[in-house]
Amino acid sequence: MDDRIRRVAILGTGLLGTSIALAAIRAGCEVEGWDLDPDVAERAGGLSGLKPRASLEEAVDHADLVVVATPIPAVASSVVLSLAAAPAAIVTDVASVKASIVSDVRARVGVATSARYVPGHPMGGSERSGPEHASASVVDGIVWVVGADAATDERAAARLAAWIEAIGARPVALTPERHDRLVAIVSHLPQVASSSLMGLAAVEEADEPEILLLAAGGFRDLTRLAASEPALWSEILVANRTEVGAAIDLFIRRLERIRADLDAADATAVKRAFDAAKSARLGLAAKPTVRSGVAVWQVEIPDEPGALARITSVLADGQVNIEDLQIVHSPEGGRGTVHLTVAAENADSAAVVLAAAGYDPTRLA
Amino acid sequence: MDDRIRRVAILGTGLLGTSIALAAIRAGCEVEGWDLDPDVAERAGGLSGLKPRASLEEAVDHADLVVVATPIPAVASSVVLSLAAAPAAIVTDVASVKASIVSDVRARVGVATSARYVPGHPMGGSERSGPEHASASVVDGIVWVVGADAATDERAAARLAAWIEAIGARPVALTPERHDRLVAIVSHLPQVASSSLMGLAAVEEADEPEILLLAAGGFRDLTRLAASEPALWSEILVANRTEVGAAIDLFIRRLERIRADLDAADATAVKRAFDAAKSARLGLAAKPTVRSGVAVWQVEIPDEPGALARITSVLADGQVNIEDLQIVHSPEGGRGTVHLTVAAENADSAAVVLAAAGYDPTRLA
Repeated sequence: MDDRIRRVAILGTGLLGTSIALAAIRAGCEVEGWDLDPDVAERAGGLSGLKPRASLEEAVDHADLVVVATPIPAVASSVVLSLAAAPAAIVTDVASVKASIVSDVRARVGVATSARYVPGHPMGGSERSGPEHASASVVDGIVWVVGADAATDERAAARLAAWIEAIGARPVALTPERHDRLVAIVSHLPQVASSSLMGLAAVEEADEPEILLLAAGGFRDLTRLAASEPALWSEILVANRTEVGAAIDLFIRRLERIRADLDAADATAVKRAFDAAKSARLGLAAKPTVRSGVAVWQVEIPDEPGALARITSVLADGQVNIEDLQIVHSPEGGRGTVHLTVAAENADSAAVVLAAAGYDPTRLA
Repeated sequence: MDDRIRRVAILGTGLLGTSIALAAIRAGCEVEGWDLDPDVAERAGGLSGLKPRASLEEAVDHADLVVVATPIPAVASSVVLSLAAAPAAIVTDVASVKASIVSDVRARVGVATSARYVPGHPMGGSERSGPEHASASVVDGIVWVVGADAATDERAAARLAAWIEAIGARPVALTPERHDRLVAIVSHLPQVASSSLMGLAAVEEADEPEILLLAAGGFRDLTRLAASEPALWSEILVANRTEVGAAIDLFIRRLERIRADLDAADATAVKRAFDAAKSARLGLAAKPTVRSGVAVWQVEIPDEPGALARITSVLADGQVNIEDLQIVHSPEGGRGTVHLTVAAENADSAAVVLAAAGYDPTRLA
C-alpha cells in the first residue's frame, strides 16, 4: 500500500505555514488551512492555493498530515485538538523548542494517542512575517528536524520524513531532548551572548562615548544577533530554559578558564584554547545545504562604489555561486577585505576566475 | 615656528610599519626604517621608498618622530632605546595595549625623559603580514588613538595628532588606561567570547555530530573571530589581562542575570534586556569612518550565481557605496536575504535605485 502523504492541513497560516503549504502544493499535495484570524487564512488561500477552512476541525477532517504552525504558546493545544479531530492523521508542529511541548501533549492525551504526534522543527524562516512574504523556497534545502523518540509511532515518523524530503527539505532525526540541547548551544546561547555583549558596551557607552568608535568588525559580527526580535526570542528561551541555562553554565565555565589563564599570564594556555577554536571554526560549513564542505577566499577590494559589483560579477560570469560573503573592515577605511565562501568543489574555479580578473585571492579555509 | 613633523623613523617594517611609511611619504615626509631582520627592511625600502638603515640608532638619528611598530614584547625596549638615541624626537608606538608599555617605559627612563613618548594605537591592520602587503590605504580614515596622559609632553602629543591627520587618519585622544579598558570590551572580550563559544560547540560535536548541521547564520557570525591568529591574540590578551579579566567578569555577570531570569521563567525581564541591546545595536554605526550614521536595508535575492552581482551593480550604477553587506541565510537555502549598510545620507537614494530595479527593500535601521 502506498502510504504517501497527499492531504495536508496547515494550522496557522503565517509566513512559515503558508510557505510549507506552497512547497506541499508544488509537490502535488492538496492543502487545507485554518488560522485564528480568518482574514489571514483567506489571504494565505489567495496567495498559495491552500483551501481556507472556517474551523480547525474542518481543516483537519480529511488530512493525512496536520502541520501546527501557530505561535509557541498555542502549539500543544492545537496538537491535542488535532489528534482528537483527525483520529487517523499524523500531527506535527514547527516550534523551535520540542521537549516541553511533547511532555505537555503526552500529559494531556496519554502516550498511546500521542504516538501519532511527531514533533518537527524546520530550521528556516524569515525576519518577515505574514502570508504575503511566504515562498516555497523558504523550505528548499533546509534542515528539518524530525523529533521522534521511543514513544513515537515509527511508521508515522518515517512517513513524515519522506514527505519532508518530497517537499524539498532535509529531514534530520533527533530526539526532542537532543534537539533542545543542541539548539540551546548553537542558536539560543549565541542570542544570549550577543545581547549581553551589546548591553554591556551600551552601558559603558554612557560614561565612555568613545567606546563605539573603537568597535571594529569583530564587535559588529558578535552583536548582529542582538538586533533580533526580543518578544519572539524571550519566548523561545523561556520555553527551552533548562537547556539554555545549562548552555550558559558551560559557556561561563569556559570564560572563567580563560580568565584564570589570563590571571596567571599563561599565554600558552590561552593560545591552546584559541588554536582549538580556530581549527573548529575553519571546518564549519558556511551553510547546511552545502554538503561537500566549503572554501573561503580572502580578497582585497577598494572601498568605493562598484567594487563589490565588480567582484561578484566576475564570479557570476564564471558560474560560481557565492555561498557567503563578508566584508572585513580590518583597515577601518580606504579599502575592504572580502571573505568569499564557495562550495569546496568550486574552490579552484573561484580562484581561477578571480586571478584572471586581476584579484589576488588568499585561501583561508 | 613651524613644528610640523617632516622626518620619520619606522622601527619594525612589517605590514603596519611599511603602510605607515607609505602614508607618511605620500604626505611629503622623509622616512628611514630599521628592522631586526635586515632583509625585511630592504624589501620594505624597495616597496615603499623608505630608506633602510643598518641600526636602530642610525634610523632614528635625524628623526622628528620615531614610530615603534615591532611585536609587542619588543615595544618598550625599542621606545627606551629611541628616547636615548634621538634626544629631541617624539617617540610613539602602534601596540594594541598601552598602559603596561607606558609604565614599563617610565620605570626604565623616568617620567621626565619619557614625556616625549606619546603612546599610540592605529585601529587598523590586515590579516596579512609582511611589507609586501603594505598599503597607504591601511591608515586611510582609521581611528588612531593618541594615548597621552598628564605626564606626557602636551606639545609632543599635539604634534603627533597633527601628523596623524596629515597622513590621512583620525586622531582620537584617550589615556592609556581608558584605551585599555575600552578595547578590552569592544575588541578583546569579543575574541574571548567567540573562541569560547566555538570551543564549546566543538567539544559537544564529538558526542553530537549533528550540532553543526543546526548552526545557522547567527552562530557563524558569533564564531567568525574564533578564526583569528591565536599567537597574536593570546599575546595581546595577556598584555591587557587586568582589563580583559574585568570585562569578562562584567560579561559573566550579565549572562548570570539572564540565566536567573530564565530560571524564574521571567520572559518579561529577558525581553527587557533584549530590547535594550537591540536598540543599542541598531544605533551602532557600521564603521567608524561613516560619521553621519548609517542605514540598513534588507532585500531578498535568489541564491544563485549572479544575484549578488546584480544587486551590487544596481547600487554601483546609482553611485551608492556599500559600507557593509551581510548575507542572512535565515531560510537556510533556496534564496538569500541581504542586509545592505549604506551611509545615512545615501539611505533614500539606495531605496530608490533598489526599487527601480525591482527589489523590495525593507529598512531595518
